[in-house]
Formats: sequence, C-alpha cells, structure tokens
Amino acid sequence: MAQGCIFCRIVEGESPARKVYEDEAVVAFHDIAPQAPVHVLVIPRKHIPSVLELEESDAPLVWAIHRAIREVAQRTGIAESGLRVVTNCGKDGHQTVFHLHYHVLGGRGLGWPPG
Amino acid sequence: MAQGCIFCRIVEGESPARKVYEDEAVVAFHDIAPQAPVHVLVIPRKHIPSVLELEESDAPLVWAIHRAIREVAQRTGIAESGLRVVTNCGKDGHQTVFHLHYHVLGGRGLGWPPG
Repeated sequence: MAQGCIFCRIVEGESPARKVYEDEAVVAFHDIAPQAPVHVLVIPRKHIPSVLELEESDAPLVWAIHRAIREVAQRTGIAESGLRVVTNCGKDGHQTVFHLHYHVLGGRGLGWPPG
Repeated sequence: MAQGCIFCRIVEGESPARKVYEDEAVVAFHDIAPQAPVHVLVIPRKHIPSVLELEESDAPLVWAIHRAIREVAQRTGIAESGLRVVTNCGKDGHQTVFHLHYHVLGGRGLGWPPG
C-alpha cells in the first residue's frame, strides 16, 4: 500500500467505493465523477503508478485487468452497445491519481477525438 | 488473417504503414488521421475483433501490447510529458476497424472527458 494513495485505501476497504467487481488481483468500482452513464474504474490491488511502470512480471495482472474489463462490461450491460477503455499517464494524459486505473465508459456514444 | 481487414493487411505488409515498432506479437504504426502530435496504433498480429474477445490464452499477447505501448512512448518522446491509451469497442465506443487496436496519444494535453 502506497502512503496517501486513495486507490490503495479503496483496495484496503478504508475508503468507500461502489464496487462492480473484484477478485484476487483487481477491484472495479464506479467513478465518483462519471463522464458517461456507465463509468467504472478497474484498478490492480498492487500499487503501480501508471501503464509505463508495468513490468514483465505484471503480465498476469495486465490480463486480470482485461478479464475484469470484460466482466464489468457484462455486469453494467454495455457489452453489446459498446464501450471505450482509457488509461491516462502523466500530465498530458490528464492522470489525476497515480495508481494505475483503466476507465471503462459506455451507455452513450463516445466522441472522437478521445479528449 | 481476416478477409478484408485493413490491419491484417498491414501486419502482412500488403498495406503501407509508418511503423514505429514491431516484434513477433505486435505492430505499432502512426494513425493516418492523427488526433494529437503523437498518435500511434498498437495492434496484435493476431486478428482479434476487440478487447471483449480477448481470452485467457491471449494473456501473453495483452502483455506484449503493453510492452509495446511503453516502447512507443519512449521512441516518440512522450514518456515524460504523458500520454493517453484508448481502445474502442463497438458502436458506442466509436470502433471503426474491427481488429483490436490501442491508440497511444500524446504531445499535447488531452482533455476530459475522453470523448
């Protein structure tokens, strides 16, 4: 657990979150500032700052995140209508919490460009 | 190779692309309609329609995509300034080519929401 990390606190159950799915590797919960009718964050339990800090040993974790994305899409009813998966990294990416997270957005047509 | 798939044609070398990186599992090339100063697509050589069709046996491939994202960020000079990684799925996600691809965007501040 990283000191002062809000997502680590959610993983530890110390901060509340509306969870959609969880397993031994990941937790998925609704974004508190949703940008679409469905807006869920999928995060690894392990504290990893961003997509650029993933290492080869995290390969099973990266798969677990993708398995969870599919599960979230099914549970929130957007698997058929479609979705966008986004992960931000650093300043230009508009990353606001430095614990790796994948946004899963759906329930409306997402525009282009993606920000 | 999927019949009529433009990304399979790029993988096979039958359609041109400005490649940034490639290895035995993935190919990365500049988007022909860039939405940011850096806009690269990372695709698996294997034809998979979207993120929702990934299976457990694709776990090494999902890792290879993420390794390539990091490599692309470094080669295009956006690893420090930041980036956004996006994959679209289905109609609401604005997916236009039905061969799994991850957009890597950077070189400018990406806005929020992501589309």
